[in-house]
Amino acid sequence: MSLYSERGVSSQKEEVHAAIKNLDSGLYPYAFCKIFPDYMGKDSGWVNVMHADGAGTKSILAYLYWKETGDISVWKGIAQDAIVMNLDDLLCVGICDDIIFNSTIDRNKLLIPGAVLEQVIEGSREMFETLKKFGINISYLGGETADVGDVVRTIAVNGTMTARWPKSKLITNQKISPGDVIVGLASDGQASYETQYNSGIGSNGLTSARHDMLKKSYADEFPESLDPNLNHKVVYIGPYSLTQEVPGSTIPGLNIGKFLLSPTRTFAPVMKKLLEEHFDNIHGLIHSSGGGQTKCMKYLPGNMKVIKDNLFEPPLIFKLIQQSNGSSSKEMYEVFNMGIRMEIFTNPQHADEIIKVANSFNIEARVIGRVEGSSRKELHIITPKEVITY
Amino acid sequence: MSLYSERGVSSQKEEVHAAIKNLDSGLYPYAFCKIFPDYMGKDSGWVNVMHADGAGTKSILAYLYWKETGDISVWKGIAQDAIVMNLDDLLCVGICDDIIFNSTIDRNKLLIPGAVLEQVIEGSREMFETLKKFGINISYLGGETADVGDVVRTIAVNGTMTARWPKSKLITNQKISPGDVIVGLASDGQASYETQYNSGIGSNGLTSARHDMLKKSYADEFPESLDPNLNHKVVYIGPYSLTQEVPGSTIPGLNIGKFLLSPTRTFAPVMKKLLEEHFDNIHGLIHSSGGGQTKCMKYLPGNMKVIKDNLFEPPLIFKLIQQSNGSSSKEMYEVFNMGIRMEIFTNPQHADEIIKVANSFNIEARVIGRVEGSSRKELHIITPKEVITY
Repeated sequence: MSLYSERGVSSQKEEVHAAIKNLDSGLYPYAFCKIFPDYMGKDSGWVNVMHADGAGTKSILAYLYWKETGDISVWKGIAQDAIVMNLDDLLCVGICDDIIFNSTIDRNKLLIPGAVLEQVIEGSREMFETLKKFGINISYLGGETADVGDVVRTIAVNGTMTARWPKSKLITNQKISPGDVIVGLASDGQASYETQYNSGIGSNGLTSARHDMLKKSYADEFPESLDPNLNHKVVYIGPYSLTQEVPGSTIPGLNIGKFLLSPTRTFAPVMKKLLEEHFDNIHGLIHSSGGGQTKCMKYLPGNMKVIKDNLFEPPLIFKLIQQSNGSSSKEMYEVFNMGIRMEIFTNPQHADEIIKVANSFNIEARVIGRVEGSSRKELHIITPKEVITY
Repeated sequence: MSLYSERGVSSQKEEVHAAIKNLDSGLYPYAFCKIFPDYMGKDSGWVNVMHADGAGTKSILAYLYWKETGDISVWKGIAQDAIVMNLDDLLCVGICDDIIFNSTIDRNKLLIPGAVLEQVIEGSREMFETLKKFGINISYLGGETADVGDVVRTIAVNGTMTARWPKSKLITNQKISPGDVIVGLASDGQASYETQYNSGIGSNGLTSARHDMLKKSYADEFPESLDPNLNHKVVYIGPYSLTQEVPGSTIPGLNIGKFLLSPTRTFAPVMKKLLEEHFDNIHGLIHSSGGGQTKCMKYLPGNMKVIKDNLFEPPLIFKLIQQSNGSSSKEMYEVFNMGIRMEIFTNPQHADEIIKVANSFNIEARVIGRVEGSSRKELHIITPKEVITY
């Protein structure tokens, strides 16, 4: 996506992968997270995982919305984003309990007051309280907040999770094989444990979503919300303001700001139940985060063809983004989750029971595709209108 | 320091402390790091610590130096800074081995290429190799690198360390009491395990040091190195360029850039030996990081008076900074380490053996002060020229 690279982002992160090529990649090459020996407990039956991620540029949207409306509570959603971007990655190796967390917040103190920090930190605490009700215990061990306005324009909210986990309960993706089907869990809607409608946006592709959806006046009014060196042509090229209603939405009163700021849904309550009750039938797990629907390609344990021919119709948010930026569907599926943020690779005969568990949490789910044999790794996304090959 | 607050930084971080007031502060209220029950191993004789910190605005200096000279290797020093800011904090609770680490790097991809990421990541790996030779085992478990140019002007390099540690080997600062002396370890010079002279700057106060030392032309040539909303009067107010020789230095060819970029010294080799051989005599440990020589005040386990009347003469770098910014000594001691970056509280009769261990690594050390009884917490810094009270 040329817009994407002109904005200094890359959905496939080629440079990052080159830079880390000499690092130890862990015990299981196809696992969704790097998995290491049990340095913490020195038990050969256990492993350690340490994972870092954050809210990325979604914090800028929170900043704009807070400045425009005065609603400071949106910062709690950013806390949730930073947490879920870690937690749902850990879920993909089977880790769903006994996690420790700390946060790393870099702020421009001249723009981000202590009251915002309180929302982020209190939002994190509340998120962990909610998860605890579902048996997902995450202990909040503190973190660092640095005042670095010469580095950070507004605020960067990141977090790290550490877990010690039994080897026997790991999902390593090595069981993914031809014959598998893929159950996809919807990123949008309202799960039984969510308090409001979720647009499904997650925390990936937000640089695009923000610039593609919001109108040019944000560049002038909030120059701190973008890199001044970006080509003006790729900056805030959309038709919307944050406070205007979402066209085509059936949710009363939903505005563009809240629509884009929907806190990333965690699938932890669903996945905990699945990992506890259907562990042997789970062949692989993919969190469709950066890289969107192509993410699975990095974790296939051999040559095979992934066919996704029954994806949901993309949720409204992705349609509006595509209308704004004019991207091809091929580009959209590479950047955004397009309606599915968790993929469960399983036997065809177990798909139904997995779907039922998701549905019990009011999350839509269905068999979105399958794995076939091939002499190379390939992905085919087949929509009613086109066939997209990666 | 009015310059300090005008630049959006605060040595005491009052807002941050207010924001985290509801968080669990751990098992030992005066310990240098938050210490928690053993969530990872569920053993009542062990604890968990998870710590986050980073290179702060020192990364901007590396950026300027790299742009001006083409010397990309300075980024390895930033990796060391991010590591040592974590490690030397952990040392202060007694943790000196069996640590796991991951990094969180936020970059502006349009300014920071993959080659810089490689230096940071390779620099981290090399640092861990060096530490291993001294019995300090830190496993590098990966991390996250995000392309977030709309959030980060250049690059933010942060890291997180997790450790599981026996309670019986913790330093909690609860043994600090009147009658103790304070052995200070020098931040400058060249330790036996360092490959070059260290100015002693560490990784704190670097926003001040950069603006106070470098000349105004950096603002025009590298606008990406500062918040454009800062008052022009507090931006790059010094007399120096990065490539000019350090006035008054006896180190041949040392320039201002390398002087300011001296990678933060770790005291891990010294502290490991002390913790192993003199554990019972260590009453408290303070890493004089943010807050400089006043840092110890936050960790006193009761009312007492700390008198520091035998500090080293401040190393050259702090003299030059003070010459540039005209700060009072009171302000300087609140922001910078001023020559001592590790304080060991001990019995008077054990000070000599502690000093000998430090000296064996070619690190200067001496009794810099003592603890006396008082009805409140107070700190007196007494130099040949003045008495400073906090």
